Amino acid sequence: MSSIFTKIVRKEIPSYKVHENDKFYAFLDINPLKKGHTLVIPKKHHEKITDMDSKDVGKIFSLVPKIAKAVLIGANADAFSLAQNNGKAAKQIIPHVHIHIIPRYNKKGTVWTKRQIPTYEVLSELAVKIRTALI
Amino acid sequence: MSSIFTKIVRKEIPSYKVHENDKFYAFLDINPLKKGHTLVIPKKHHEKITDMDSKDVGKIFSLVPKIAKAVLIGANADAFSLAQNNGKAAKQIIPHVHIHIIPRYNKKGTVWTKRQIPTYEVLSELAVKIRTALI
Repeated sequence: MSSIFTKIVRKEIPSYKVHENDKFYAFLDINPLKKGHTLVIPKKHHEKITDMDSKDVGKIFSLVPKIAKAVLIGANADAFSLAQNNGKAAKQIIPHVHIHIIPRYNKKGTVWTKRQIPTYEVLSELAVKIRTALI
Repeated sequence: MSSIFTKIVRKEIPSYKVHENDKFYAFLDINPLKKGHTLVIPKKHHEKITDMDSKDVGKIFSLVPKIAKAVLIGANADAFSLAQNNGKAAKQIIPHVHIHIIPRYNKKGTVWTKRQIPTYEVLSELAVKIRTALI
């Protein structure tokens, strides 16, 4: 059975794509902690980063600052955190490696509240802004 | 002025070392969120990962799974999370890039409570166990 992320990579289900190359795929979290919450995943399925080849771990993370910079511009954020969970006790929900890029903002309450689900229009527009900042 | 992490790298102040190579340094957080909480840092000072060369970002993160596996063994943990904060709005306290490896446990309450400061003896013994698992 394929994970939901494998289906996203295969375009079997839609996503708000931010970036893609031959090995990795980045898209907006549809249930964001903050405006601009982005996930970066390997196209090949691995449950945990300790299951990946260490060179590929290096490759995916070396892509992250570039994407994070574009997220900061596109979402007009002030800072960002990275988070990556491995295993049930770490509250990993989808068993496919994913790196969270979570934008942070100086002014509380001026951006999306925690786990507010945005509309298609809002996320589509945001993905375009981030993709534009990446070029 | 040097950051506290630069002083740790230069051995000007002591730390519970877990691993070291020519570019990176890993040691126990003395104010751990969980038993085995480890920090991995570049020896060269950079405030944020977006200030680092992307190749070096790849290199430091490719080292993380190896260290995380040893932390899991040494601390007898069930899972782990990675966290890495960039900027004041992301609650970055020390302005020197650091990756948190935070072990997670199935049984709540059986390991250190949040931000309990362990003794020298406890942390020394734990660092030895993790270093041993790394060999």
